[in-house]
Amino acid sequence: MKFQKNNLTEKIIINNYLKKLNFDKKGTFNFDNDAAYLNLKNKKYKFTVTSDTISENIDFFKNDNPRSIAQKITTVNLSDLYAMGATPHSYILNMCLPSYINSKWLNDFSEHLKKIQIKYNFYLLGGDLSKSDKLIISSTFFGYIDKNLEVFQNKFNIDDEILVSGNIGESKIGLEILKKNIFVNKNLSQYFINKYLYPSPCVIGSKVAKLSSSIKDISDGLIGDLNKMLNNKLGAKINLNKIPISLKTKNIINNTNIHLENLLNAGDDYCLIIISNKKNRSKIEKIAKKNRIKISCIGKIINKRGIYFDSLININNIKEYDHFS
Amino acid sequence: MKFQKNNLTEKIIINNYLKKLNFDKKGTFNFDNDAAYLNLKNKKYKFTVTSDTISENIDFFKNDNPRSIAQKITTVNLSDLYAMGATPHSYILNMCLPSYINSKWLNDFSEHLKKIQIKYNFYLLGGDLSKSDKLIISSTFFGYIDKNLEVFQNKFNIDDEILVSGNIGESKIGLEILKKNIFVNKNLSQYFINKYLYPSPCVIGSKVAKLSSSIKDISDGLIGDLNKMLNNKLGAKINLNKIPISLKTKNIINNTNIHLENLLNAGDDYCLIIISNKKNRSKIEKIAKKNRIKISCIGKIINKRGIYFDSLININNIKEYDHFS
Repeated sequence: MKFQKNNLTEKIIINNYLKKLNFDKKGTFNFDNDAAYLNLKNKKYKFTVTSDTISENIDFFKNDNPRSIAQKITTVNLSDLYAMGATPHSYILNMCLPSYINSKWLNDFSEHLKKIQIKYNFYLLGGDLSKSDKLIISSTFFGYIDKNLEVFQNKFNIDDEILVSGNIGESKIGLEILKKNIFVNKNLSQYFINKYLYPSPCVIGSKVAKLSSSIKDISDGLIGDLNKMLNNKLGAKINLNKIPISLKTKNIINNTNIHLENLLNAGDDYCLIIISNKKNRSKIEKIAKKNRIKISCIGKIINKRGIYFDSLININNIKEYDHFS
Repeated sequence: MKFQKNNLTEKIIINNYLKKLNFDKKGTFNFDNDAAYLNLKNKKYKFTVTSDTISENIDFFKNDNPRSIAQKITTVNLSDLYAMGATPHSYILNMCLPSYINSKWLNDFSEHLKKIQIKYNFYLLGGDLSKSDKLIISSTFFGYIDKNLEVFQNKFNIDDEILVSGNIGESKIGLEILKKNIFVNKNLSQYFINKYLYPSPCVIGSKVAKLSSSIKDISDGLIGDLNKMLNNKLGAKINLNKIPISLKTKNIINNTNIHLENLLNAGDDYCLIIISNKKNRSKIEKIAKKNRIKISCIGKIINKRGIYFDSLININNIKEYDHFS
C-alpha cells in the first residue's frame, strides 16, 4: 500500500523519509498503490503476524529522541516475532503525527528505522499517516517460520526447565533514574537510561524454537509474563539466586532503595522466557553462546499452581506491569 | 497475537467483545499468544496487505453510532483490497480507546464488525488495545489474490476506457446535510446520511481484475483519484454527462446549492475506477450486472496530460479531498 494522504507535506514525508525504508520496490509498488503484496518465495514457510501500538506519555515522552521511539516500536514487535520462533520479514507503519513533528524529527526517526531494518533484515511495506494531538504509532510486523513449526506460550510439562535470556530489570532502573526516583553516578546512569530508551529484542527465539516447549518475551515483567505462560494450569519453582541480573544492577540494588523484588515485575526488558525439557538445555546454551546471549536456568515447572521461590513463599502478590492501567 | 493489555477491563473487552470475532481459533491461539499465524492453504494465492487509520474528529465524530465507525474502518480497508483485485482474508485491529468507551459502545461496535465479517468472509487475527484522549482505530487487512496476478493503479494505454462503479457523491451530500450546509426532506436526508455513515466497498474489484489495466477505489474523490492513476503520464477525456449520479442526487443538484462539480472531488465514495481495454467492457458489465452493481463508462485515456471534460476545459483546478490537511 502507499501512504494515503496526499498534500505536499505528506508527499515530502513519503519521498524524503519513507521511500528509503522500502527495500522491496516491486511488491510495494514503490508506495504508489493502496496495498502491497506479501509473498514468501519459499513454500517451506508460513507468515507470523504481530501488532503493537506505542503512545506519547504512555510508552515514551514528547521530547524523547526520535531514535528511541523508532527503537521502541520496532523492538516491541520484533520481540514478539522472535518469541514466536519467527524471523523478521517486513512491517507496516501507521503514524498519527502531531504538529510538533518536523523534518529533523522525521529524519532521525527514519534513519534509525533504516539502521534497524538493515540489522534485522526486514523492510517497510507501507502504512498510513494521519494527524493527531499526540504521537501514536501502530505497527504490524510480519515474520516467517517453518510451515510445520508451532511455537506456543503455554504448553509444557512438569519438570521442564525455565530459562531466561539476558539480564532483567535494566530498563526499569533506567526509567527510575529518568523519573529521579534514584540517583547514581553519570556513567551508570547513562548505561541504564540507554537500556530504557533503546531496548533490543532477543534474536535467539527463532533459533531455539524447535528445542522449546514454550517461549514468551518479557514485556510485562518476568513474574507477570511467566504467570501468563503458566495460565493457571501448572506452577513454577524459582531459585531467586539464579535470577539473571548484571553486576551494574547488583550495584544499584546494594546502593539504592531498589530491591530485586522490584525488578521481577519490571516491564520492557524484552528478554525471553524459554521453557524446555532439560535434555535440550545444553543445545540451547550453545546457541545462546554463539549469539553472545547470556542464558540462565531460574527454575522449573512444578505440579502446583502459582509461582514459588526456593523458600516456597508464593509471590503471586507481586503485581505485573500493565500498559493499559 | 493476542490483545496485549492485561487488567480486568482489557480481559473483559477481549473475552466479551473480541473473541467472538476470531473465526480461526487455531491460527490465532484464541488470542492467547503475542502473535498469530497467517497461512494460505492454497498455494495458488499470495497475500495482499493494506492498512488505514480513522480518527475521532477527522473521519468520524465522538457521538457517531459505533456501528458506523465499525463500518468505516472495515470499508476503507476492504475497498483497498478489492481495488487490488484481492478477496478479504483477515484483519488486525489496533484501538486507542478514550474513557468514554463503555460496554454498550463495545457491544454495538463488535456486533457490527461480526456482521461485516460474515458478509465479506474474513476474521479477526488479533491486535492491540491502548488508552488515549481520542478514539483512533488503525487496522491492517489481509486479502488473497492469484499468485500470478498483479493489479496496478497506473498502468494503461491510450484509448483505454475509464469505467466507474456505483454512483458518486452520495456520501459527500450526507456529510453536507449533517453539517447543516443544505436542507432536504427527512427521507432524502436519511438516505444520504446513511451513505455517509455506512459506506460499503465495491466487491467486483476481485472479479474484474484480470480484465482491467488498472483499478483504484475512490477515497479522495473521482477527479483526485483519477489524477493519481494518471500520475502525470497520460491524460483523460471525461464526458460530464456520463458521470454516474443517482436520481436522488440529481434532485439535490437541482434544488440545493450543490453542483455536480462539488461531487467530482467528494471523498469516501468507495466506488471503483476501472481502466480497461474497450474489448473487455461487455465482460466487465456482465460481471457488474451479476453483482447488481451499476457500471458507467465516463471517458477514455488520451495522449495529453491532464483531465479534460468534453469541452476540453482542463479541470486540474478542482481540488481533491485530503484527509491529512
